Amino acid sequence: MAEFVNVAVDGMGGDNAPLEIVKGAVEAVNESSHVKVFITGQPDQINSELAKYTYNKEQVEVVPASEVIDMAEPPVMAIRTKKDSSLVKALNLVKAGTCDAYVSAGSTGATLVGGQVIVGRIKGVERPPLAPLIPTADGCALLIDCGANVDARPSHLVQFAKMGSVYMESVMGVKSPRVAIVNIGAEEEKGNALVKETFPLLKNCPDIHFIGSIEARDIPEGKADVIVCEAFVGNVILKMYEGVGGVLIKKVKEGMMTSLRSKIGALLVKPALKQTLKAFDLEQYGGAPMLGLKGLVVKTHGSSRSVEIKNSILQCITFTEQNINQKIKEKITMEEN
Amino acid sequence: MAEFVNVAVDGMGGDNAPLEIVKGAVEAVNESSHVKVFITGQPDQINSELAKYTYNKEQVEVVPASEVIDMAEPPVMAIRTKKDSSLVKALNLVKAGTCDAYVSAGSTGATLVGGQVIVGRIKGVERPPLAPLIPTADGCALLIDCGANVDARPSHLVQFAKMGSVYMESVMGVKSPRVAIVNIGAEEEKGNALVKETFPLLKNCPDIHFIGSIEARDIPEGKADVIVCEAFVGNVILKMYEGVGGVLIKKVKEGMMTSLRSKIGALLVKPALKQTLKAFDLEQYGGAPMLGLKGLVVKTHGSSRSVEIKNSILQCITFTEQNINQKIKEKITMEEN
Repeated sequence: MAEFVNVAVDGMGGDNAPLEIVKGAVEAVNESSHVKVFITGQPDQINSELAKYTYNKEQVEVVPASEVIDMAEPPVMAIRTKKDSSLVKALNLVKAGTCDAYVSAGSTGATLVGGQVIVGRIKGVERPPLAPLIPTADGCALLIDCGANVDARPSHLVQFAKMGSVYMESVMGVKSPRVAIVNIGAEEEKGNALVKETFPLLKNCPDIHFIGSIEARDIPEGKADVIVCEAFVGNVILKMYEGVGGVLIKKVKEGMMTSLRSKIGALLVKPALKQTLKAFDLEQYGGAPMLGLKGLVVKTHGSSRSVEIKNSILQCITFTEQNINQKIKEKITMEEN
Repeated sequence: MAEFVNVAVDGMGGDNAPLEIVKGAVEAVNESSHVKVFITGQPDQINSELAKYTYNKEQVEVVPASEVIDMAEPPVMAIRTKKDSSLVKALNLVKAGTCDAYVSAGSTGATLVGGQVIVGRIKGVERPPLAPLIPTADGCALLIDCGANVDARPSHLVQFAKMGSVYMESVMGVKSPRVAIVNIGAEEEKGNALVKETFPLLKNCPDIHFIGSIEARDIPEGKADVIVCEAFVGNVILKMYEGVGGVLIKKVKEGMMTSLRSKIGALLVKPALKQTLKAFDLEQYGGAPMLGLKGLVVKTHGSSRSVEIKNSILQCITFTEQNINQKIKEKITMEEN
């Protein structure tokens, strides 16, 4: 078993479970011989989906789980009471060391709570952030934190900067990633109390490449690789991507449908447009890792289809092979010296 | 003079001063016989610009000011030391009662500080917010606060909700405007400490139409008319509009230029596209009013051209004729009973 990276997949989580989850898992093992997936869920349903595909049986295992955690359930209560849910079972596989990583399209709240309570934090990590990759004009950036901890303290943000740097360098291959803190102006004296307190700490942090403040307008431009902010602000940034993007694309489509002339034009530009806009799609990068836990926990969109599940599983291979958690541990401990 | 709405215009503020400022002022008086503009600045420069146009001389007055406040100057110091600047002179015209309103494309910081220090707050208003109109899928919404006060308290946010409601109802003609607070989820128990404390206050506020939380993704969709948030978050929202919008439009253009086929298509869709995208342009609405001051203070983009200056000046007519400040005073005082 040592030859595989073992990934626990919550087979019943998300809007399209189990169909797209199982499909994505099969696509992942068919693309990489390095990975084994453990799909948790109701065996009948999972097996009847699996029966549709051809794949190496050694790389897929079904782990029975009788319950399902609903998107709307209060997370703490769900984790506590639904011990036999696909989500909790999958997290327990990581806790037990059977799996290196966890992927779920299910409840964000339950994943965040369960990640901390079941998988547990790396020693020294104060708060584990949720850190999605967001598209930029010429690539992507890591938005950290984006929903795990509201009302964060400066020391948390410094750890986010360190963990984010490790991720961008080791998983995404960005050399000496540029770290910036989200602010309402470029000058050091600008900002709210949290940013003003955090700024000098980041500036004096020797093991990251801190480039100062970043205004929200410059994030999509790609002016930094690790975007540090507290979770409330991070959530607003992520959702403005979706909101502004969605409305603008709708306006572009409406514009193209206003006259016969523009309709003909639309037919001609469509394929090229689809291609460039795909590069700016929030969902292309697979799931958001929750960093600083003893195993890798990845949350993908509730609406994930197989391609996103597959990408999330494959992302776990690099994460594990690159020994990210060991690197995070070293970087966080360095701070304490 | 009583027949005019009198507007003080900072003739030297902004990237395109005095050329576009003077042009916009002339366009405003040529469009409305109800307004008189007082342009502050270096008389030679202002007069030589004015000489280019035809307009009713009774509606334009040049008020000499020898200094200019630079965009990068620390605001408090600039207001204190540059008494003869075009910005301070224009604010003083409002303070003295000569003018009803002020419009500037100059330093945001100096306008915010000067608005409070020179024009002064309406009695009972704790913090005057900066409140730009932002485009939505089917119209616009008021984003309040967007840069005037970081680290706001719940009572401030409640006042923002009230002032914003008055503005949307009386200036924009939205009946019983829907007020929402920016949050990271739709449920009442979600949010950071500030939002959790503010939510019940808004819910129990009898004279606004509070509809609950709004996630950032739903703002561009137009799901509320008055978007309440503290300034740091408001600034991030406003700048994400610019950032995501800018990069997406660039991607659309790039996509259209990738092949001969798409280039021909682009020629055909261009006019229609331009039309629909214009409706989603942040700059179409003229300036952002700073609410809760004894006179109206309007800040327009630093890059404003004449059309924005004109719209900002014309917006002052409705504001003054609708007696917004009296309405704000009544609504704020009601809270104290």
